[in-house]
Amino acid sequence: MEVDKDLKQFLKKIMAFANKTGIAYRTGNIYGGLAGFWDFGPIGVEIKNRIKDAWWNEFVRNRDDIVGYEGAIITHPKVWEASGHLSSFTDPLIFCEGKCKKKHRLDHLLEDQLKIQTEHLNLEEMGELVSKEGLVCPECGGNLGKPITFNLMFNTQVGPVKDSASVAYLRPENAQLIFSGFRNVIDSTRVKMPFGIAQSGIVFRNEISPRNFLFRVREYELMEFEYFTDPQKTNDCPLFHEVAGTKINVFSRKEQIEQTSEEYLSMSIQEAWENEFFKNKWQAYWLATFNNWFTDKMGINGKKLRFRQHLESELSHYALDTWDIEYHYKFGWKELMGCANRTQYDLKQHQKYSKAKLHFNETDETGVKRYIPYVVAEPSVGLGRILLTVIADGYQEETVKDRKRVVLKIHPNLAPYDVAVFPLQKKPQILAKAQEIFKFLRANGLTVNFDENGSIGKRYRRHDEIGTPFCVTVDFETLEDENITIRNRDSMEQTRVHIEMLIEELKKLGNNYLAAKMI
Amino acid sequence: MEVDKDLKQFLKKIMAFANKTGIAYRTGNIYGGLAGFWDFGPIGVEIKNRIKDAWWNEFVRNRDDIVGYEGAIITHPKVWEASGHLSSFTDPLIFCEGKCKKKHRLDHLLEDQLKIQTEHLNLEEMGELVSKEGLVCPECGGNLGKPITFNLMFNTQVGPVKDSASVAYLRPENAQLIFSGFRNVIDSTRVKMPFGIAQSGIVFRNEISPRNFLFRVREYELMEFEYFTDPQKTNDCPLFHEVAGTKINVFSRKEQIEQTSEEYLSMSIQEAWENEFFKNKWQAYWLATFNNWFTDKMGINGKKLRFRQHLESELSHYALDTWDIEYHYKFGWKELMGCANRTQYDLKQHQKYSKAKLHFNETDETGVKRYIPYVVAEPSVGLGRILLTVIADGYQEETVKDRKRVVLKIHPNLAPYDVAVFPLQKKPQILAKAQEIFKFLRANGLTVNFDENGSIGKRYRRHDEIGTPFCVTVDFETLEDENITIRNRDSMEQTRVHIEMLIEELKKLGNNYLAAKMI
Repeated sequence: MEVDKDLKQFLKKIMAFANKTGIAYRTGNIYGGLAGFWDFGPIGVEIKNRIKDAWWNEFVRNRDDIVGYEGAIITHPKVWEASGHLSSFTDPLIFCEGKCKKKHRLDHLLEDQLKIQTEHLNLEEMGELVSKEGLVCPECGGNLGKPITFNLMFNTQVGPVKDSASVAYLRPENAQLIFSGFRNVIDSTRVKMPFGIAQSGIVFRNEISPRNFLFRVREYELMEFEYFTDPQKTNDCPLFHEVAGTKINVFSRKEQIEQTSEEYLSMSIQEAWENEFFKNKWQAYWLATFNNWFTDKMGINGKKLRFRQHLESELSHYALDTWDIEYHYKFGWKELMGCANRTQYDLKQHQKYSKAKLHFNETDETGVKRYIPYVVAEPSVGLGRILLTVIADGYQEETVKDRKRVVLKIHPNLAPYDVAVFPLQKKPQILAKAQEIFKFLRANGLTVNFDENGSIGKRYRRHDEIGTPFCVTVDFETLEDENITIRNRDSMEQTRVHIEMLIEELKKLGNNYLAAKMI
Repeated sequence: MEVDKDLKQFLKKIMAFANKTGIAYRTGNIYGGLAGFWDFGPIGVEIKNRIKDAWWNEFVRNRDDIVGYEGAIITHPKVWEASGHLSSFTDPLIFCEGKCKKKHRLDHLLEDQLKIQTEHLNLEEMGELVSKEGLVCPECGGNLGKPITFNLMFNTQVGPVKDSASVAYLRPENAQLIFSGFRNVIDSTRVKMPFGIAQSGIVFRNEISPRNFLFRVREYELMEFEYFTDPQKTNDCPLFHEVAGTKINVFSRKEQIEQTSEEYLSMSIQEAWENEFFKNKWQAYWLATFNNWFTDKMGINGKKLRFRQHLESELSHYALDTWDIEYHYKFGWKELMGCANRTQYDLKQHQKYSKAKLHFNETDETGVKRYIPYVVAEPSVGLGRILLTVIADGYQEETVKDRKRVVLKIHPNLAPYDVAVFPLQKKPQILAKAQEIFKFLRANGLTVNFDENGSIGKRYRRHDEIGTPFCVTVDFETLEDENITIRNRDSMEQTRVHIEMLIEELKKLGNNYLAAKMI
C-alpha cells in the first residue's frame, strides 16, 4: 500500500532533515509524541508564513472578486448536521478480538485481502463479507469483531453542563464556516456575482492511521475558498482567456478506468475545456490558475503536476465532480490540492436546516433575479502539504569537491531569510561594517540573518540547508574598497560588487523575486 | 459587576457596528449562535491580519533575539499534567438545584453576596460558607448544590479507541508548546542567551460565562513569547537604554491596596525601575517596549494605558510577578495585555515529568555554564482583544453639516484598504482612467478598493466606516489636466494633485505610515 520502502526511506530522510534544521518536530516529543500532530520550528514557521501570505495576497488581497472570512474552530453542532458530516464523514472500522487488539480500516482490509472494490458496500455488507470469507486479523490472525462506523470529527463539550446539547465539533473543513456564514458576508459587503469567500485555518480530522510525516495528519492548516456563480451561468468565465494557454497534464476518469495511459495527456487548458473534461468552465479556470501559482509562486516543477479526476466512487457526499492537482513525489503521484464542484448542495442544506434565507438577489436592468448560488469550484489545499512538497522538491544532496552539500533549493520568496550577512572575521572593524550592511538590507525591507560563527564554508553550508538564496561576505578588502562578495545558493557562484550596487545586484541575481519586497 | 449599564450599551453599539461592517459575527448565528465563539468577516480578517503581521514583524522577523514556533492545538496530555493546568486551571462552580438550574462561579457568588475576598479559600471551605450563611441561588432563590471544580481546558478523544489514554486537550495557552518544545529549538538553532521563543495561535478556554463581545471568549488567537535568561542575569538588560525614557503610568500593588490613588503614578520606565516596582529589569524593558508598540504601531492613545501589578491573590500558579497593561475603555480599566515573570517553573516541571534535559549550555572563555533558563517575561496579548481595543478606540460619531458621520479612526497601517479609488461617474473614459490609477496604486504595493456605486458622499461614508484613510476621486477634469482629488478620512480635507504626485502626496498625508509599504 502507501507505505512502500521508497516512501519510508525518503520520508525518514526528510523528517530527520526537518528536525535538524528546525522545520518540524513531533508535538510533545519529550513525552513520546502524539500520532498525527506536529510542531513547527523557527525555520518551518517562516516558510509556512510565506506560503500562506503568498496564497492570501494572490487570491484575496489582490483580487476584486474574493473576500476573506475566518470562522470559529469549535462550531455549532447543527452546522455538521446540515452539511452531512455527522452522518457521512466516517470510515468503517473493525477491531481485532484476538491477541493484538488492533484496529483496521475495514474497506482497506477487504480491498487488500479480497482484491475487490468496496465503494458500493455499506457497513453491514462489509461485515457479512468478513464472516463469509472467514477473514482474520492480518496482524495476529485473531478473530475480527463487529464492524463500526467511526466519525472523523473530533468532538468536545462546551460549558460545564454535560448533556448532548453541549457537544460541539472541531471543524474538519473551513468550507462549512463559509456556507453557514454566507448570509453574514452578503449582508455586510457589496459583493457582486460571481465571487468567492476564502478562509485559511486549522482543521481537525481524527484519522484512524495518520502517517507519512506531514502528509496525513490529524491537525493541519487548510487554505480554501468557495467560488459562487449564478447556477445558470457556471460557464460564464470572463477571466478564462487569461489562463487559456496554460499547459496542463490531464489524467481523467477515462484514462484511469481504461488504463490506456500510466500518466496523463498533455494539452492546454483551452483544449481540455473544448474536449469536455470539465463540468464547468470556472473549475477549469481555477485549476489552471492554481497550476500557474504552484509553478510561478511556489517554485514547483510544472512537469511534476497533473490534474486527476476523482472516480465516481471517490467523490465526497457533496461533490458533483472533483479534480485533484497531483504532484509526482519521489514515492509516486499524490494529491497536492483538491478542487470540488459542490453545486448548490451546501447552501441548500443550510437553508433547509436553519430556515435562514441563503439566496442571493441580483439586480440588473431587467429587475431582481433570486437564486441559491452555485459553487463551481472549491480550490482547497493544505499548507503543510505545500510545505512538504516544497521541501521534498527542493531538497538536494550534491557532491562538491568530494564533500556532500545539502541544499534546499526553494523559491527565493519562500526562503526564511532573503540574505545572510557574514563578517569574515570577528575583528571590530569588519563586524561594524557587516552590521552596517545588515541594517541597511533590513531597512530595505529584507529579512536578514547575521552570522558570525565558524568558517565561511560552514556558514555557507548552514544557509544552504535552510534555503537562504544569497550570502554577503564582508572582508578586509571591503574596508578599503567597499566591495563585498555575494554568493549564490544554487550556482555557488560568487560575485564581487560595490556596496552601492548591492541592492541592484541582489535584484538581478534574484531574478526579480526579491525586487517586489524591497521598499 | 462587569456588565454594568454603560458597558452593555457601548458593547451593543460596537457589536451592531461590527456586524454591519463585516468585522465580526456570532458563529453559527443562523442556528442561534454558540456562546463565546465568533466568526470574523472580510473587514475583521483584514484588520486582524495587519495586527498579527505587525506583531510578528516587530517581535520575531526583525529582531535577532526571538525565533518563532508553532505548536499543535491538540496537545499531549502529559504537557498539561506537568504544567499544572490539569490540577490548577480551574474555576469553582455551584449549580442551582431549584427552578432555574443555573450554574454560578462560586467565588464570584461569595464575593457578591458576602462582600469577602475568596482567594485563600479552597473548594470545601467555600462550600461550607454557602451552608453556614444559608446562601441561595441569586436568580431564582432555589437551593444550591454541592460545589465542584471545573477545569477550563476543552478535551477530546484522539483515535477511535475510547479509553483514558486517548484523552487529549486543546491548548489553553501557547506557552506550554514553547516549553515542551524548548529542546527542539535549542537543538536545531544556534540561539544565544538571552533569547525568546514566540508563538501566535488559537487557544481555547471553556469559560463558564463568556461575555462582552470579543472581550471574554472561549476561542481566541493569543500572541505570546517567552523570554529566557540566565537565572543569575535577570537584570542584565543591555537594551534597556532604548526604552529608558518611555513615559508610563504605574498602578502597583501598593496603590491598589492602600487605595491612595484611583488611577496611577506617571513616570519614566527608568524611574519605575529605580523605584523597584519590578522584580527584574527585562520585565520592565518588555512592558515599556509593548507600551511603545501599542502607541506607535497600533495607534492606541498612550494616555489610556497603565501598568497594573497583579495582587498576590491574583497570580497564576506559575507566576512570581505579573503586570498587566490595561486600557481605559469607555467602561473602565481592563486588561489589554499580561506580562508574567514565570521563573524557571515550567521548564523545571517539564524536565521532572519528561526526564528530558531542558537545561541550556552556555559556552564562553571560562568554560561551559549549564542552567535551566529563567523566564523573565512572557508578554501575552489576545489578537481579538487588540482588535476590540483598536475599534473601540477608533470608533467615532461626528456631526457633519447636521448629519451623522460614523468614522473608524484607526492607524492607517491597520486599515483594510490603504486607498479607495472612485470614478465620479460611470462614463467609459472616467472608468478607464480610474482603473488605470487603481492598478498603478496596486502595483505600488498598496491594498486598494475600487468603488463605483452611489454618490461620492455615500462612498466616503462607506469608507469612513471601515477606516480607509484616503479616497482618490477621478472626475471629468482629470481627463483634461491629470489632476485627482485625495480626501483625508480624519480631517475630511480634500487635496487636488497631479497624478504624478499621487504617491508622494499619499506618503506625505499618511505621515510616512504608508511609505514603508510602497515598493
